[in-house]
Amino acid sequence: MAGELRAWIRERPAGAKLPSTRILAGEYQVGPVTVQSALQLLVADGLVETRPGVGTFIAATRQARPVDVSWQTTALGWSDVFDVEGSGVRTHAPDVIGLHTGYPSPSLLPGALLRSAVQKVSRDPEILMSAAPASGLPQLRAWFARDLDGQRTGGSGIDESDVIVTSGGQSALSASLRALAAPGEAIIVESPTYWGAMAAAKAHGLRMIPIARTKDGIDPADLDAALAAHGSRVFYAQPTYANPTGDVWSPHVRAEVMQVLAARKAFLVEDDWARDLYYDAEPLPPIAAADENGHVVYIRSLTKSLSPAIRVAGLVARGPALRRIRSSRWVSELFVPPFTQQVAVDVLAHPGWNRHRAALRRELRTRRDELRAQLTRAVPEVEVTQVPRGGLSLWVRLPRGHHAAEVAERALTLGLAISPGSEWFPTEPYDQFIRMSFAATPHTRYVEAANILAEVLR
Amino acid sequence: MAGELRAWIRERPAGAKLPSTRILAGEYQVGPVTVQSALQLLVADGLVETRPGVGTFIAATRQARPVDVSWQTTALGWSDVFDVEGSGVRTHAPDVIGLHTGYPSPSLLPGALLRSAVQKVSRDPEILMSAAPASGLPQLRAWFARDLDGQRTGGSGIDESDVIVTSGGQSALSASLRALAAPGEAIIVESPTYWGAMAAAKAHGLRMIPIARTKDGIDPADLDAALAAHGSRVFYAQPTYANPTGDVWSPHVRAEVMQVLAARKAFLVEDDWARDLYYDAEPLPPIAAADENGHVVYIRSLTKSLSPAIRVAGLVARGPALRRIRSSRWVSELFVPPFTQQVAVDVLAHPGWNRHRAALRRELRTRRDELRAQLTRAVPEVEVTQVPRGGLSLWVRLPRGHHAAEVAERALTLGLAISPGSEWFPTEPYDQFIRMSFAATPHTRYVEAANILAEVLR
Repeated sequence: MAGELRAWIRERPAGAKLPSTRILAGEYQVGPVTVQSALQLLVADGLVETRPGVGTFIAATRQARPVDVSWQTTALGWSDVFDVEGSGVRTHAPDVIGLHTGYPSPSLLPGALLRSAVQKVSRDPEILMSAAPASGLPQLRAWFARDLDGQRTGGSGIDESDVIVTSGGQSALSASLRALAAPGEAIIVESPTYWGAMAAAKAHGLRMIPIARTKDGIDPADLDAALAAHGSRVFYAQPTYANPTGDVWSPHVRAEVMQVLAARKAFLVEDDWARDLYYDAEPLPPIAAADENGHVVYIRSLTKSLSPAIRVAGLVARGPALRRIRSSRWVSELFVPPFTQQVAVDVLAHPGWNRHRAALRRELRTRRDELRAQLTRAVPEVEVTQVPRGGLSLWVRLPRGHHAAEVAERALTLGLAISPGSEWFPTEPYDQFIRMSFAATPHTRYVEAANILAEVLR
Repeated sequence: MAGELRAWIRERPAGAKLPSTRILAGEYQVGPVTVQSALQLLVADGLVETRPGVGTFIAATRQARPVDVSWQTTALGWSDVFDVEGSGVRTHAPDVIGLHTGYPSPSLLPGALLRSAVQKVSRDPEILMSAAPASGLPQLRAWFARDLDGQRTGGSGIDESDVIVTSGGQSALSASLRALAAPGEAIIVESPTYWGAMAAAKAHGLRMIPIARTKDGIDPADLDAALAAHGSRVFYAQPTYANPTGDVWSPHVRAEVMQVLAARKAFLVEDDWARDLYYDAEPLPPIAAADENGHVVYIRSLTKSLSPAIRVAGLVARGPALRRIRSSRWVSELFVPPFTQQVAVDVLAHPGWNRHRAALRRELRTRRDELRAQLTRAVPEVEVTQVPRGGLSLWVRLPRGHHAAEVAERALTLGLAISPGSEWFPTEPYDQFIRMSFAATPHTRYVEAANILAEVLR
């Protein structure tokens, strides 16, 4: 009744009188007490006003007062989490050359495979309308288990019970950090490291203890010392084609890190985000391949090689750690849509998947080489710190006297989006690097991109 | 080269000798140093052993030692988060009558609309292969903004900039609790309340201060006292068709709660999970409809009326709270798949959506009435605590002397899955209630369900 009266009121001007209680009672076939209850609702909503002895009237149009949220400032108190959205996820005008984002353009992705998988999957009512098991669809968990198990060099086999499907790598690493470290505790990270991991660590109130990168990846003695000095039990790292540097840990570092983890009773959260993104030789097996006793939480993301829009990653862990991560992930997303999971299963099982990966590798190699060549031609004063063997970007050192944030800002005004490298440092940012990602923009625009950078530096 | 050697090794027995460095160098057209590097990798992996002066041999097959994760127990330390997966998300044999789960069966969902939207959306490469904006697709944000704005009775209008799209209501409430309360702090909750919210609160290290339900919903004076006594600034509630009780806050409670929030500078996280699930009259507008100054974080989920598999919800908030929630959500999932968002946009814009909602209401009313009728017939000794006007379940009090957990366990052995009510209590569980959900199972099986319950109680 109140609902219908609301509609009635909407169509009439302020000050109009409502029918009397008696008339309303008759119209709605209810008693006067019910009418009064309905009117009370409208009064509470500020839609009508009652003038005792006179009647009920439509209230003056509600005043559009500005929202006053100043009280929140005091109520919410301290936080070191502000806007975590970095330059890599910003959207720019379509004519801007986008070397800032790590999201691959559709031309790098298996469009035809995806579309036919989606069409097929959409015919299954179960997939369209049912909840998925909390840990993921069994077939997709099995794929991730086989993927790691096929590279195993130590310990017992991996099977689907060791796997959780998550909404991309970010969901997996965020749940892992929350599950393995308590607010106020320290985690060890490489410096520089993936800023999405830093954002997750900050949001959870973790202190980040950086260890330096070396030419072999990291120095395991640094890790050992940092774990001990800070009472930490968690090391987050990208040992294979690190974002943003492209670094790869050498075999002896991999073996020694395993030993440090065992001795210190610590976890490695191994973010294997770029396993499909190598250019020439297959990458070394992940550290998780040699893990015997559950020290490694392994995250294998497919969002970069399958589609950022089909958000799936697999997380492999053992024992109580797996249980805690499962709970931690569960409370923030319940389950990954079965639809995206089944699309992934179908694409991964298709013979075209390996052809796609091969084409992706060729294209990435072309882009890397062309971007390097154009930088050498137009901007010889910058240094490409290394020729990456995988991943989606170059890590570029600016000449002395230039500041990355300013360079990025000026470049944007000239139509080139790049990321200031400072965003990847957990503590004091070096302001001397830029990240140039070739994920979103094909090589035909690199001449122009390099020319813009040259102009900015001049 | 190491990769190819690995494949070669896999096909040969332990103890077999590898070709000499000289032969390998010739075969691969590389220098002896490269060969040694490749062999070193295989040694590190434990695949081969070198015997100086003799050669390199395939190592004895790796021992399948059991995983020893006992070290994790000490390393991980204390936690009050164990398995948070409640009875509502368990999977049972297909012949079990499922009155335990809150996930609606496909017959309650708009299958034809969903399928045609999916088919249409799958033809858009942008949707299949691009990242979505962190806060959600503009069209879907606008829908959620209009949905709330159309019910507004106070304050200024809501627009899409006040909205974040999340992966279902759980993602929204989890991000809200993490953003608005720090570990160790207290939040106020109704008792009983939704167990997914309790799981999220526990995982974040929050203390839950319960306030009793009353016939009008809650007593605002209880809320006021609890906020003051515990220095809390967050109240999580389901004011409309609460899960599990079906309670609806009365109009005066709604108005008074707003006053308490304003006086105490506190937030209400309003979980409006069942707005589409009423049976007769439209529900009262949400509390958020009268919120002028950003005290209410409003969560409007579509997973129950659209599809649990198309996981979308809208979260509306204002000011710094919105910013913090956005960051908190972002670090755990980056963005919701554009695919599921676009499917939601299409279905919501279709004229069939309102027809679907009407059919859903009729079917839910039939199920509620039939389940009540069968309980009255077969198990008159139980008490349906109220006739709910919306939602997906009955909240049933067992006769004295019966324990809910035991009853649920025995019922399952006879082929009926129900949920012990104890799971919904934040502190001491009452062991006297069961929740019987009619979401997943049509009314044709309620005769049998009631008979099983009768047999268990006898």
